[in-house]
Amino acid sequence: MDMTEKMVSSEEKFKGRILDVRLDTVELPNGHGAFREVVRHPGGVGVLALDEEGRVLVVEQFRYPYGKLLLEIPAGKLERGEDPREAGIRELREETGATAGRFESLGQVYPSPGYCDEIIHLYMARDLSFGQAQPDEDEFLQVQRIPFEELVGRILDGEVTDSKTVAAVLKAKLLLG
Amino acid sequence: MDMTEKMVSSEEKFKGRILDVRLDTVELPNGHGAFREVVRHPGGVGVLALDEEGRVLVVEQFRYPYGKLLLEIPAGKLERGEDPREAGIRELREETGATAGRFESLGQVYPSPGYCDEIIHLYMARDLSFGQAQPDEDEFLQVQRIPFEELVGRILDGEVTDSKTVAAVLKAKLLLG
Repeated sequence: MDMTEKMVSSEEKFKGRILDVRLDTVELPNGHGAFREVVRHPGGVGVLALDEEGRVLVVEQFRYPYGKLLLEIPAGKLERGEDPREAGIRELREETGATAGRFESLGQVYPSPGYCDEIIHLYMARDLSFGQAQPDEDEFLQVQRIPFEELVGRILDGEVTDSKTVAAVLKAKLLLG
Repeated sequence: MDMTEKMVSSEEKFKGRILDVRLDTVELPNGHGAFREVVRHPGGVGVLALDEEGRVLVVEQFRYPYGKLLLEIPAGKLERGEDPREAGIRELREETGATAGRFESLGQVYPSPGYCDEIIHLYMARDLSFGQAQPDEDEFLQVQRIPFEELVGRILDGEVTDSKTVAAVLKAKLLLG
């Protein structure tokens, strides 16, 4: 069975600096019409950085949509035309001051495929050296180092909930043992 | 340091059937102003259902934002005022026909906390019995059963990318062993 939905029309409903929202009309496999509300996003990166003592660099910051502080791996949006790997290296350096001797892919995560086209590229950074963090003037975050196994436990306990952090840490746990 | 961002004003930019988009002005901890583009979503559920042979019920469906088929655990949005656990039981039954003797929480995942307030509630369903699936007339999906360890492998290989599926399956792997 071909399950493809064909676009019939597409209307821009919001054009922001981070995301755009479109309302598309599609033709379903049974010939019926349907609406699709779609958030268009440039894509992002998340970096699981492990120091020599087996601790993970994590960032605590206020996340306005939830109105509270969250613990996440260093992350950010792709800039226009930016290679995901370069974006990961840039975000790690800006948020934590770290540069990595080894920078490897941990795959991708699709955060909410029902309505959003964002792809988050995940990386693991090791052999770290440290310079000065360069957060934006208006970016407020606190970098912490949490032992890897403690972070795994805080995910399994339900305390850490961010999807890219869960995906990167649990994939690394199962790949590295 | 108090990292709270205080709302100064909030403007509705799009009101859809699934999601709303608001453009808020906030006051940062340093007194500066900033904009926040926020997608408001009712929240969702995802259900990792294991049959007696240790296979996971997965759903393959066309995901319009990505323009391709994705493999995901059964999932859906919360209806207005609906309890997340009841929504999980409902979505599992509608999409696969299964009802579960044991239905346990696997915590929550926040798919994209930079701009969206969605919370996905995760559950594990076991002791399954099967009736007739009841997909909507305009919902096209194919249910498959994939051995649990094979699904773990397809996540670690990077083939399965949906955030709720990654979170639920890898949490279950580490919690159940």
